[in-house]
Order: sequence, then C-alpha cells, then structure tokens
Amino acid sequence: MGGDFGPRNIVQASIACLLATPSLHLTLVGQSSLLEELIARHSGVDRSRLRVVHASEVITMDERPSQALRGKPDSSMRVALGLLAEGKAHACVSAGNTGALMALSRFVLKTLPGIDRPAMVAAMPTRSGYCQLLDLGANVDCTAEHLYQFAVMGSVAAEALGVVRPRVALLNVGTEDIKGNQQVKLAAGLLQAAPGLNYIGFVEGDGLYRGEADVVVCDGFVGNVLLKSSEGLALMISERIERLFRRNLLSRLVGLMARPVLGRLKADLAPARHNGASFLGLQGIVVKSHGSADAQGFQSAIQRALIEIQANLPQRLRGRLEDLL
Amino acid sequence: MGGDFGPRNIVQASIACLLATPSLHLTLVGQSSLLEELIARHSGVDRSRLRVVHASEVITMDERPSQALRGKPDSSMRVALGLLAEGKAHACVSAGNTGALMALSRFVLKTLPGIDRPAMVAAMPTRSGYCQLLDLGANVDCTAEHLYQFAVMGSVAAEALGVVRPRVALLNVGTEDIKGNQQVKLAAGLLQAAPGLNYIGFVEGDGLYRGEADVVVCDGFVGNVLLKSSEGLALMISERIERLFRRNLLSRLVGLMARPVLGRLKADLAPARHNGASFLGLQGIVVKSHGSADAQGFQSAIQRALIEIQANLPQRLRGRLEDLL
Repeated sequence: MGGDFGPRNIVQASIACLLATPSLHLTLVGQSSLLEELIARHSGVDRSRLRVVHASEVITMDERPSQALRGKPDSSMRVALGLLAEGKAHACVSAGNTGALMALSRFVLKTLPGIDRPAMVAAMPTRSGYCQLLDLGANVDCTAEHLYQFAVMGSVAAEALGVVRPRVALLNVGTEDIKGNQQVKLAAGLLQAAPGLNYIGFVEGDGLYRGEADVVVCDGFVGNVLLKSSEGLALMISERIERLFRRNLLSRLVGLMARPVLGRLKADLAPARHNGASFLGLQGIVVKSHGSADAQGFQSAIQRALIEIQANLPQRLRGRLEDLL
Repeated sequence: MGGDFGPRNIVQASIACLLATPSLHLTLVGQSSLLEELIARHSGVDRSRLRVVHASEVITMDERPSQALRGKPDSSMRVALGLLAEGKAHACVSAGNTGALMALSRFVLKTLPGIDRPAMVAAMPTRSGYCQLLDLGANVDCTAEHLYQFAVMGSVAAEALGVVRPRVALLNVGTEDIKGNQQVKLAAGLLQAAPGLNYIGFVEGDGLYRGEADVVVCDGFVGNVLLKSSEGLALMISERIERLFRRNLLSRLVGLMARPVLGRLKADLAPARHNGASFLGLQGIVVKSHGSADAQGFQSAIQRALIEIQANLPQRLRGRLEDLL
C-alpha cells in the first residue's frame, strides 16, 4: 500500500516479476478489494503464484515509527512482516514509510545475535562498478562498535552479491590516520584487528565514486546526506544538460541524439530509487523500495530480495557474526 | 608555494588578476628567487602592483597542522598571514595544506569575539543559483552552538555576496522536527529563536541542489563528505557521458558537438576546486584555493577575496555577532 503512488506500480511490478521468474511466488498484502481490482486490469496473470492477503490498515508516509508500532496492529506492513516471521514468506519488499518499516522489522523479526541496530544498505554506482554503502539513514548516531558491525554486514552482503574478498572502507574526511571524528578513528582500530575482513582503510567522498572500495561504511546521517545529495546532483546535472542542449537548433539536434544515452545514465545515478535498499542485521530479508519508485524500480527491489534469498543472506550473516563478534 | 602544482599557476593567476583589476595590489610570499623567475616569464607586468616577499620555508601538503604551527616560523603561509595581521594586506589566498592554513590562521589572526571555531564555506551550484555550504571540514565534531555560529556567519557571508535576506537551513536526514541527531535538533531550537535570521528549517541533501536554501549548515564531517562526493560524482558522470559518446560514429559526432556544453558543466560542478573556499570567523579574510586548482581556479579564489574585502566581511560579521551571540 506504500509509496508515493500507492499500490498501482507495485501490482504492475509484481506481475512483471512473476512473468520473468517462473519459480517466484508473491503475496500482496493490503486492502484486498483494491488490490484485486488492480490485478484484474492485467490479463494472463498466474494466480496460483500471486496471492492477496488482506490488511485493514495503512501506515502513511509521514507517520512516526512509534505510532506505526503502537497504533496500527493490522497495517499492511505489519501483516507482511508477520508472514515472514511465521515462515510463510522468504522476504518482504515495501515502498512505504522507511522509519516505520525499520521499527516494525526490528519488532516483528528481531535483530541477529550480536547486532545492536540493523543498517540500510544500497548499491551505489562507481567508476568501476558498484559499492555497497551503509548506513543510509536508519541510525543517525553511531558508536565505533556500530560502524564495525555495519562493516561486517556490508562485507557479507557484498559477498552474497558476488564480490570476492570485498574491499571494506570507512568513509572519512581524509585518508591519513589522524583524520576524522572519534567514532571513525576507533572503528578503524576495530576493523584493523578483525580477522578475515578485507579492511583497506579510509575512503573519501570522491574515492567512493572512483571505486576504491566495495563496501563503504558511515553513520546514517552521513550516508543519508551522501545518498540524497548525489540523487539531487545527478538530477540537477541531467536538467542542466537538457537545458544546455535546448539552446539553439544545433544543440537541440545534438540533445535529441544524446537522449537515450543520458536517460540510461540518469537511471543509473539514482540507485536507491531504482535498485532498492536492504535492511541488514534482521532475522529475515527486508528490502525497501524508494517511495517514488516507478514499476521498474519496484521490480529491481524484488530482484534484490530474490538475490538475497538465493544467497541465504541472514543465515550467512549469522554465521559470520558468530565468528567475528 | 602551495598547491599540487607549486607556484607556477599561482603566479599566472596573479598576473591575470592584476590586468583585470586595476586597483588590485598583490604580494606573493615564498621563495623569492623562484617567484621572480616565474614572474619574469611574463611580459608587461606592472611591478608597482606586484610585490614579492621572501619566506624561506614551505609547508608541505601532508604536514600536520601541529608541525606547521611549531616547526616552521618562516613558512610562506605564516609570513603571508603575518602581513595580514600587521595590516599590510587585506586578505590572504592560499592553495596550500588546508589544516595547516586553518591552524596558522587561528593562531596568527585569532577568531572574532563569540566564535569558537572558524568554518570553511564555499558556494555550491544549485538549480536556481548558488548556496553557501558550511562547514566543509575544518570541524569534524560540532555542538549545536557551533552549528548556530556557522549559520550566523553563513548568513552574513551570503549577504556580503549580494543575497537579500538569505534563507538559512540546517542540513538533515529529513524535514520533520523529529528527524536528525541531537546537535541538529538543538541547533534548530537556537536558530528558531535567533532574531533577524531568516531560518527556514531543515533541508535534505537533494533539497540543497534543488536550491531550497541560500545557506546550508552542517558539521565539517558531513560537509566534507558532501563536497567531495559531489565532486567525485560529477567527475564520474562526465566520464560516463564521454564514454557513452565514444561508442559509435554517430555518438562520437554528437559527443564532439556536445563537448563545450559538457566542459562548462564540469567546471561548474567542482565549486571548491574552481571558486575557492573562505574561512569565516577570523579577524581577517582568508581564502583557500583547491590544491589541484588551475590558474583559472586560483583567479576565482582571488576574486572571492576581493568581494569579501569590498564587503568588509570580518567587520560585518563582528557587528552581527555582537547583536546575536
């Protein structure tokens, strides 16, 4: 029921995913009459793989996490997470209120042993591929221990996505040992001493985009600012390019020819909007799609959940945490 | 003597500025024989407006601020700041080691009454013009009071640059009151109560680029990450565009035609590299040019210093701080 555009995009994305992945079963949780109506608009839907579960309440985008926790026992978000907790689903994907989803996930699924706080991670495009950036806003204040836990989780997540011996770095304002705040300096000490972790040191904001690391760790305040400012900058750049290309007849022509090239770039540069962000550290797989994601974006979020299911990510994490924490 | 390319670019930029601004007098501080040699390569230089002052030592780019403070009494940076303190210069512009320049500036010039720590500010491009972003890395840990002081200084700086009633915002992970860390929430309270300040609330990373505020305030860790990641992203985008345009003959042709358009955009998107960053809160004007700035970049930094001299920025700040703090 979540997201800025309600369930229409989500139903569309779900049906596309069912067609693309024959082994996939999906359960849509929300106001069943509305969902059934939206499904009925599509033809050829394999209903043996698409179930609807009714939930009478909806958490709005501006609701406080505490309200969502206490006030709405039958919200679509809570019912969906309940299916996960009961083993009736392998992953939960939502485009709803991020804070509420995190609070409900922690409450319903619980964190893994050794994890104080789950983190939010997404793949950011870099010069040489992608890097996993965490935390993206779930934890605005972090101790060195939290950053250390994020690094371990990010490393396992990158491995699950196919990266061999992921290079793990701490985001900092410089690369020398003396740089940074107390938490980052202490976390560096913890990470240097961690066995089996490929910790490569500090990385700066530009180093992230240069592809210097496969996992970049920071507190949720910094990660959220980096993510959103990058989205904003990418949008501004694409607007400026379009405007510059509109100047005269020649540049208009050039702009017209360049459009597909720029369009692909634009999509690639808003990763959270397009690829979904995962919650790491829970006893279950939860993927958050951007509130303003289109059907394509929500499809990518379902794909990310599928990859995490195939990699058995929470179980892998549990094993790794037992070794390290 | 500073910067990644040494004094060559700086001499070139200085001579260009002297030509462009007939009322400007410049003093170059550093190894006089080298500087004279570089000046001699240019013809038609008005030496009555270009003085050389010898300094026997140079602070390297990787030197610690504490070493710079204690170990090198005759560094070019210290001698230049000394000229400022003695009233023999109106502003100091440097492309050298940022940390050393900040430490020496505080030691030689002192902060304004009411200011605990100077901040570093630069103009970031936005959809509708520019915004002043501070702090950019001088202070990695900030209290609410520091953020408040930065907001006051940023507002006065924006006014000096011609903005009427600058909209001042705190950078945060959301726009609702409950969002953010303790420092940001407390700073919001201080700013709401500040008379004569046009405080508009929280702004997110994407809001900055949307042009929602004229002054955006954050701690130096967040500001530095935002600045550097933006530079890195802009660079990555321009590289990707170039690569995409190289694909086939048609896109090569399009790329060739688009090059001037993209070049201008690229320059505009690395503000600190190109426009210089100011230190605010000192009893004097200090502008830091990017270490890898070209002559054009250093010229812009001198221009920023000129604007601050004309606006009498430290004096204005002093008056405003007396009213507010």
